[in-house]
Amino acid sequence: MTEHEPYRREFLDKAVLEARKALSRFQILPTGKKNDVLFRLAELLRLKKAEIQSHNRKDYDLALSRGLEPALCDRLLLTDGRYEQMILGVTDVAGLPDPVGRAVDRWVNPDGLLIEKVRVPLGLVGVIYESRPNVTVEVFSLCLKAGCAVVLKGGSEAVSSNLALVEVIHAALLENGVPPSGACFLPWTDRSAVVDLLGNTRLDVVIPRGGARLMETVTEHARVPVLRHDQGICHIYVGESADPEMTLRVVLNAKTSRPSTCNAMETLLVHASHVPSLLPDLVRTLREKEVLIYGCPVTRKVDERIRTASPETYRTEFLSLALNIRVVESLDEAISHIAEYGSGHTDAILTRDLPEADRFQNEVDSSCVMVNASTRLHDGFAFGLGAEVGISTTRIHARGTMGLTELTTTKYLVRGNGHLRHA
Amino acid sequence: MTEHEPYRREFLDKAVLEARKALSRFQILPTGKKNDVLFRLAELLRLKKAEIQSHNRKDYDLALSRGLEPALCDRLLLTDGRYEQMILGVTDVAGLPDPVGRAVDRWVNPDGLLIEKVRVPLGLVGVIYESRPNVTVEVFSLCLKAGCAVVLKGGSEAVSSNLALVEVIHAALLENGVPPSGACFLPWTDRSAVVDLLGNTRLDVVIPRGGARLMETVTEHARVPVLRHDQGICHIYVGESADPEMTLRVVLNAKTSRPSTCNAMETLLVHASHVPSLLPDLVRTLREKEVLIYGCPVTRKVDERIRTASPETYRTEFLSLALNIRVVESLDEAISHIAEYGSGHTDAILTRDLPEADRFQNEVDSSCVMVNASTRLHDGFAFGLGAEVGISTTRIHARGTMGLTELTTTKYLVRGNGHLRHA
Repeated sequence: MTEHEPYRREFLDKAVLEARKALSRFQILPTGKKNDVLFRLAELLRLKKAEIQSHNRKDYDLALSRGLEPALCDRLLLTDGRYEQMILGVTDVAGLPDPVGRAVDRWVNPDGLLIEKVRVPLGLVGVIYESRPNVTVEVFSLCLKAGCAVVLKGGSEAVSSNLALVEVIHAALLENGVPPSGACFLPWTDRSAVVDLLGNTRLDVVIPRGGARLMETVTEHARVPVLRHDQGICHIYVGESADPEMTLRVVLNAKTSRPSTCNAMETLLVHASHVPSLLPDLVRTLREKEVLIYGCPVTRKVDERIRTASPETYRTEFLSLALNIRVVESLDEAISHIAEYGSGHTDAILTRDLPEADRFQNEVDSSCVMVNASTRLHDGFAFGLGAEVGISTTRIHARGTMGLTELTTTKYLVRGNGHLRHA
Repeated sequence: MTEHEPYRREFLDKAVLEARKALSRFQILPTGKKNDVLFRLAELLRLKKAEIQSHNRKDYDLALSRGLEPALCDRLLLTDGRYEQMILGVTDVAGLPDPVGRAVDRWVNPDGLLIEKVRVPLGLVGVIYESRPNVTVEVFSLCLKAGCAVVLKGGSEAVSSNLALVEVIHAALLENGVPPSGACFLPWTDRSAVVDLLGNTRLDVVIPRGGARLMETVTEHARVPVLRHDQGICHIYVGESADPEMTLRVVLNAKTSRPSTCNAMETLLVHASHVPSLLPDLVRTLREKEVLIYGCPVTRKVDERIRTASPETYRTEFLSLALNIRVVESLDEAISHIAEYGSGHTDAILTRDLPEADRFQNEVDSSCVMVNASTRLHDGFAFGLGAEVGISTTRIHARGTMGLTELTTTKYLVRGNGHLRHA
């Protein structure tokens, strides 16, 4: 299978079938063997760095010349820093405890029947993602460590980078006697490959990471369980008692540290008491960082260059240096705004008031609800999980940042001595 | 909405929307209030027993006169014993600890950021089920206790029983000031009501419990996350070292104690060493209980009345007093048979041999793998969970018997002191 081969469904079916066959090997790999593959992968990534980065540069230049949006081009690039981070990610995963076989629970029923609930690999996992090629390596590492085989469908704009990375992954598997077909990369850029993958019931789960268009395709065509990694319309509410200095720092960090990510803030809600002083400071500081502001009528009085916010902009995941600012009269109004326009991803409150913090955390129904911290911290690495498969916006199986444990399922192991059912 | 109203999609949409609105109330109900509703429900069920059983009798007689299969008619009937069990189930759920708000994990990252992962209600749950009307009460009780609103779609053959039960549920809610729209029952018997429910993206999850035809509809039409409660093609493997007395008891229990359930055994695999003695005993004992046997060539030599087993019968969930028997040469052959024909539900081995038991439990990839116990014991009540929503054959979110915890999801609560993202 090469990038030049035209897409045909039977190729995809065959690749998925081969990955399924490899799964039975992946499921029972000893921890030591899985770590051997990961350490070798880290070595090979280091050895092949120049080659891989030159493929990545090709993808990047092509994306630029095609006029793709800057947020997307930025995410595509494997800078030296990101490359090192990617290698570190692989060795970090090797260092994580193996989740397979761990006890979730163990008890004895009143009749003396022993019941254990233990972690086992989730199975054959399909991952659909866009632009960032380091995801290829991250997702493979986590799946391998969790005993899962994986079918990867990366973005068309990163295909050269991904093929170079997958070559290295396959080498690391082969050198350790593990079938490389358990890490299957689909090189086709056709949308029908995505549709067919979503319909392939040999997969135990598909994890789609992407924007609204991908999610529409998923809703329409998925015939297998899905863990969505949907958009993040993240809010920060600046409560009446918020510390002004902290507010400026956190707001800047949440908006400008990496605006192309799903945990970047898209709407700032400000309590009306801050209109005279903190609001103008916020507007000035954000404008200095070239943030394009959409404001409510009160906010627009601060600076005439502020555009008009609308329900449409409140529902927009900008993924760029753009931001809504809305002045609200109360905590209730802030919570209502988030319920109406939020995506249930990550929302934060800045406050010194304990009852207000508690109410915000209880009543905002998002995967992560923060107090006095930047929304950008909702991340597997920042949380100290050692890695991240993505941030689930689904309510089932996994919600919020997804680590190694979320790539497992459970199995009941029951032991009796001739026990019967009497009821 | 009555049973006489013709089905129209806008009625369903409105009912789901009302249930969604009620959800925000259900999510924050204090434990005491939830238990008040449950205790009142138990009382009302006791008071209205004669009335509800007469409705149930109507359903049963109609099902018999329509010539529905005996397994289905049996499951429909609310006998005195099952009625008492149903009431006991409600008070048991009241006695279970409330899962909402419980900590799953709590840690502090290296920067001092506090991260808590806590249980919150799963959300708006749709449940599609057949025949057994006690499921209406069981599922409602569990959903309420977990803070979930629920949309129930019962089987057309149980509609009178279900409407009578739902009336009592609504009374218990109303008397406690909880909106009854949060426990919505869809009385229509049209298949298009199932299709529209599966496509209603206001639901957070749908739990379908039923046979192959329902599962096909689910695969085709579901646009929301699904936790399947699919068929159980359960096996028992009688290993070489199995105790003959125990084998006879466990095999009889697994096949005949309630053949219409998904955890009943459908195929018995017997090690070749038992052909001279235990196999004839098994065949005789099963035939005495009027079990219809399909056998492999070796088994058929025991008794000429045994029918011929085939790949088709091995793939059949009989749900009746019918059984496949196949003689195998080894543990490997038994494991391969289960991998090929099983449904990943519940499988058991009878053995005294420890390494054999361990290999069977590790290598059989089913939601519950048992040693020296009847497959019928895979059940929330038998396990001591206090209740059961069903037995999930999905790998994500919940696998095997599903209790109260599986009706929750999690939420990250993060607390900092102006923490920023630096990477």
